[in-house]
Amino acid sequence: MTGTPRVAIIMGSQSDWPTMQRAAEMLDKLEVAYDARIVSAHRTPDRLVAFAKGAEDEGFKVVIAGAGGAAHLPGMVAAMTHLPVLGVPVQSRALSGQDSLLSIVQMPAGIPVGTLAIGEAGAANAGLMAAAILAITDPALADRLKALRAAQTEAVAERPVPAT
Amino acid sequence: MTGTPRVAIIMGSQSDWPTMQRAAEMLDKLEVAYDARIVSAHRTPDRLVAFAKGAEDEGFKVVIAGAGGAAHLPGMVAAMTHLPVLGVPVQSRALSGQDSLLSIVQMPAGIPVGTLAIGEAGAANAGLMAAAILAITDPALADRLKALRAAQTEAVAERPVPAT
Amino acid sequence: MTGTPRVAIIMGSQSDWPTMQRAAEMLDKLEVAYDARIVSAHRTPDRLVAFAKGAEDEGFKVVIAGAGGAAHLPGMVAAMTHLPVLGVPVQSRALSGQDSLLSIVQMPAGIPVGTLAIGEAGAANAGLMAAAILAITDPALADRLKALRAAQTEAVAERPVPAT
Amino acid sequence: MTGTPRVAIIMGSQSDWPTMQRAAEMLDKLEVAYDARIVSAHRTPDRLVAFAKGAEDEGFKVVIAGAGGAAHLPGMVAAMTHLPVLGVPVQSRALSGQDSLLSIVQMPAGIPVGTLAIGEAGAANAGLMAAAILAITDPALADRLKALRAAQTEAVAERPVPAT
Amino acid sequence: MTGTPRVAIIMGSQSDWPTMQRAAEMLDKLEVAYDARIVSAHRTPDRLVAFAKGAEDEGFKVVIAGAGGAAHLPGMVAAMTHLPVLGVPVQSRALSGQDSLLSIVQMPAGIPVGTLAIGEAGAANAGLMAAAILAITDPALADRLKALRAAQTEAVAERPVPAT
Amino acid sequence: MTGTPRVAIIMGSQSDWPTMQRAAEMLDKLEVAYDARIVSAHRTPDRLVAFAKGAEDEGFKVVIAGAGGAAHLPGMVAAMTHLPVLGVPVQSRALSGQDSLLSIVQMPAGIPVGTLAIGEAGAANAGLMAAAILAITDPALADRLKALRAAQTEAVAERPVPAT
Amino acid sequence: MTGTPRVAIIMGSQSDWPTMQRAAEMLDKLEVAYDARIVSAHRTPDRLVAFAKGAEDEGFKVVIAGAGGAAHLPGMVAAMTHLPVLGVPVQSRALSGQDSLLSIVQMPAGIPVGTLAIGEAGAANAGLMAAAILAITDPALADRLKALRAAQTEAVAERPVPAT
Amino acid sequence: MTGTPRVAIIMGSQSDWPTMQRAAEMLDKLEVAYDARIVSAHRTPDRLVAFAKGAEDEGFKVVIAGAGGAAHLPGMVAAMTHLPVLGVPVQSRALSGQDSLLSIVQMPAGIPVGTLAIGEAGAANAGLMAAAILAITDPALADRLKALRAAQTEAVAERPVPAT
Repeated sequence: MTGTPRVAIIMGSQSDWPTMQRAAEMLDKLEVAYDARIVSAHRTPDRLVAFAKGAEDEGFKVVIAGAGGAAHLPGMVAAMTHLPVLGVPVQSRALSGQDSLLSIVQMPAGIPVGTLAIGEAGAANAGLMAAAILAITDPALADRLKALRAAQTEAVAERPVPAT
Repeated sequence: MTGTPRVAIIMGSQSDWPTMQRAAEMLDKLEVAYDARIVSAHRTPDRLVAFAKGAEDEGFKVVIAGAGGAAHLPGMVAAMTHLPVLGVPVQSRALSGQDSLLSIVQMPAGIPVGTLAIGEAGAANAGLMAAAILAITDPALADRLKALRAAQTEAVAERPVPAT
Repeated sequence: MTGTPRVAIIMGSQSDWPTMQRAAEMLDKLEVAYDARIVSAHRTPDRLVAFAKGAEDEGFKVVIAGAGGAAHLPGMVAAMTHLPVLGVPVQSRALSGQDSLLSIVQMPAGIPVGTLAIGEAGAANAGLMAAAILAITDPALADRLKALRAAQTEAVAERPVPAT
Repeated sequence: MTGTPRVAIIMGSQSDWPTMQRAAEMLDKLEVAYDARIVSAHRTPDRLVAFAKGAEDEGFKVVIAGAGGAAHLPGMVAAMTHLPVLGVPVQSRALSGQDSLLSIVQMPAGIPVGTLAIGEAGAANAGLMAAAILAITDPALADRLKALRAAQTEAVAERPVPAT
Repeated sequence: MTGTPRVAIIMGSQSDWPTMQRAAEMLDKLEVAYDARIVSAHRTPDRLVAFAKGAEDEGFKVVIAGAGGAAHLPGMVAAMTHLPVLGVPVQSRALSGQDSLLSIVQMPAGIPVGTLAIGEAGAANAGLMAAAILAITDPALADRLKALRAAQTEAVAERPVPAT
Repeated sequence: MTGTPRVAIIMGSQSDWPTMQRAAEMLDKLEVAYDARIVSAHRTPDRLVAFAKGAEDEGFKVVIAGAGGAAHLPGMVAAMTHLPVLGVPVQSRALSGQDSLLSIVQMPAGIPVGTLAIGEAGAANAGLMAAAILAITDPALADRLKALRAAQTEAVAERPVPAT
Repeated sequence: MTGTPRVAIIMGSQSDWPTMQRAAEMLDKLEVAYDARIVSAHRTPDRLVAFAKGAEDEGFKVVIAGAGGAAHLPGMVAAMTHLPVLGVPVQSRALSGQDSLLSIVQMPAGIPVGTLAIGEAGAANAGLMAAAILAITDPALADRLKALRAAQTEAVAERPVPAT
Repeated sequence: MTGTPRVAIIMGSQSDWPTMQRAAEMLDKLEVAYDARIVSAHRTPDRLVAFAKGAEDEGFKVVIAGAGGAAHLPGMVAAMTHLPVLGVPVQSRALSGQDSLLSIVQMPAGIPVGTLAIGEAGAANAGLMAAAILAITDPALADRLKALRAAQTEAVAERPVPAT
């Protein structure tokens, strides 16, 4: 996707990419430029601070942050920027993402994180929601979004296909 | 708040208002006009369809939807508009909002709901997040948002006050 | 199964069919005609409204609805028809159907969904329960149902067979 | 309510009545005759067997069974009658009805219990669902049910009323 | 194992045998005679009643009952006998035995079921506990039990063996 | 209760007594002598070891152990005696006894604890189950147990009493 | 407590103090100097960074951090210091501290937080554990710790006191 | 690792070693001598008592204890030593370590266990935390710890690598 990235997709580690690339693919489909980076709240806290405080100046309008387990990345970015932050709970090994979900969504009053579903569906939806946010003042993107939604509706078959 | 409402605050029933008014109060503080309505997915499905399909034409830019238990309102509104939808899980009686949270956040790929925390903190944050979304292209609102966030930081005391 | 379908089996997506066909198989055994369709609450909300409002006129007496995750289909159909609606929580990936179950069963007073177990057992039982409902005024079906139940009892061995 | 009872409302103990009377009230509103009894699966197993095996001959068409904790009543009745059985998980002390819900809803294939929400909402909905089942072949009841549903829709205010 | 069976091992279905045979194996080791049967609370309720009411006359002293999901077998047997009943929650598919555990252990005051761990460990321990109960008045069995416990202690190595 | 105590009722702290006295009351009713003591696995580990290793020599036949939170008392006693041990999960503050239950019931193969329900119902049932175990070889106690069970059955009213 | 503080007790907000003061009281008893501060990961991220990076230079040897909900404070401090960090999950409103616990304990490999129990017991134990850590090389403190532990053992009564 | 072991790594059974060796590997990296042993709270209670009471005299400064299911080892060791005890919840079969976690972390006031994450991450972090505790008074170890943490930060790539 060319153009100045309007969306940052960040994640806690390389292992989150198979999940978070669903966000990237959705933004690709909608022709929204993004930048994908690894920012670990725990292993690279300085990078976290630098990213969060500089996100507005870098030109980002929306941040998508994915993390698993004690998932602090989305909330800590939200603590240091007023840009809208969307959180994706990555499915964790022992607790299947229940820890990720609660760590991301249960933010205290004052610092919001808009949280999506656990795993790949949540990542895809974070991409969609970032686009929906940008589409408020981008009519062309709104049209692409409506077209994608319409195509999605079209693609639902009338009847289930029995396995053969 | 005067001006054309840019944010719709909807909720499943009157009993959700003590929670959802935290969203209204936050928008009041940030001088963002909103309209608060009761739209029950289950008891007023026609009103739901009319609201969701007409939200864009009414001039709304963001929808905040709160509901409890088998909380279908946020997801069903999201199914019928491409506007960004924020979901607030209202604390339920038997399961303390765990049912509300899962019913709102676990949306399938294709239809996003940005979900906030269970209860009043989540409602307040839905107001904040709606403002953050609008602030992307509203510099005056961005300034008010930054001021509120700064005041919030200022208000944190250095040391806990022992009870006397 | 020939004859005018008395039971509608609907599901949110093609991927729910391996679960929901257990309902179909049970109705086949009991010689109850049904119609199986994909109706996605989120991706095809218009189809949902049309189905739910027209279900009675189509001649359906009972609706079986299966869905997973933030499973809104059963409850939303129930909101738009007074026909009895049976809900089947499809086993979801991250949370094993706990989200599906709570999203379906925790309906507010006024709009009931009779919920069965998570997964294939629940789907089979939805078929059985639909038949039990119809059997109230269909003595021949009641006889078939009693025969099936009796055969089921007969099929339970006296002693476990050790693996060899 | 006069007339031969078509619905049996049974419950495990006197302490379940504050919950289960919501079912009775709903049937009263819809003019459906019912009989309410205490049948404890654990303390009165013989009464359970007698009730379940005799329910059809007593003229019951639908059974509503409420119980809490290790809630075996609905499933055991369902094991001994082919009548449709609706289960109401009563809110338990330590686990808030999560034990009641799982004990009722997770029935194996072959013996269905249509399960409603935990607590009073579930009890009210069990009454409604029993009526919906009977209304399939009782047009006058169907009319009363539609009227109740319409009144319920009417009663939803347009806007939340702020506390004063 | 020869001799009159003092322990009954019952289970809801053939599929519970791979779990429940751990109880049988433990009783074999301790030379306690048992009888293993399939008794389905839901599919063979008459067999359940006959078994539970006749267990004392058959000479059984302890009943071990295993079941999964909405696991009603142990509690219903306990309702119809005053013999001590031990319950084994079989690991279920969707909820990993959490439903089985709560359905068995959360019995109301008046009808106890001594519940063991989910799955094979619980089944083995049900065998051990049955033996411990019988050993109260059977010194030879008490000696065998002590020997087994001592051997078990002996078998614990001092240091973990690294994989090679 | 006079006579040599056959049952030991132990608990982790004084605060467990309001729960555990239900066990004592049940044994009183059944005329089974018991001794109630505080034995804290964590604060009095030496007392724990002394009690567990000496329980058989003290003449106890069954041990009832109640504890809350990280409830190690029942399992640690079971590790040091071959007497049957019954565990009662005391309802804890934050997690309502879910931690107590899992800490007691999920014992590894080799060391059984027969676990009862969370809280007072579980304590009463521990008393009942201890009696049932002793009744195997004590016909007079068996008669008292049967009488208590029969009285319990008698006490169940036919119909719920509406509040007035 | 006089002397240079060796332990920092930090918490996310004033509302955490009723819980966290149990840590302070324990350190008071053991004559370990501490400093108690409010450091909000979300509302005062700069203070968080300054505290965490400066903790070693301030002379702190151990950090106790308490927080509730999406509790990021302990983990984020741990990310920016190599001092041992102890985490206390404060009991939250809707989810009773289950969210706090998972947000604190489920840290990824590389950044440890030693987590204590939910609520006041956990806070008291954080104080005790900080003392135990310091006592490794402080024999006088070790003696005070042993004395406190011995007194704690002494204080356990032999028998429960029935209410009168 | 040569030198007198300062850290004891104990675990309930051989099957815990694949998890617990992550602690050993971390201590190897940091050149901290340790001793790894199997100590089963349930199968070898005497060994448990001997180990816990003798740990200080053996020269251990920190104890790492891993266990699964009803995981009593860490808490029981903590009950018999004032050395700091770190607990590692081993991932269990049916409940994925939720039982292990609650059994370890929910200790009552008076006996702390610093609990790490479920599974291998928790074991590695127990090694790290033991090192952090020792590093308070061991500057060379503190340097190695800082170097490891720095290397860990260095190792985080800037951008995710798409699969090819």
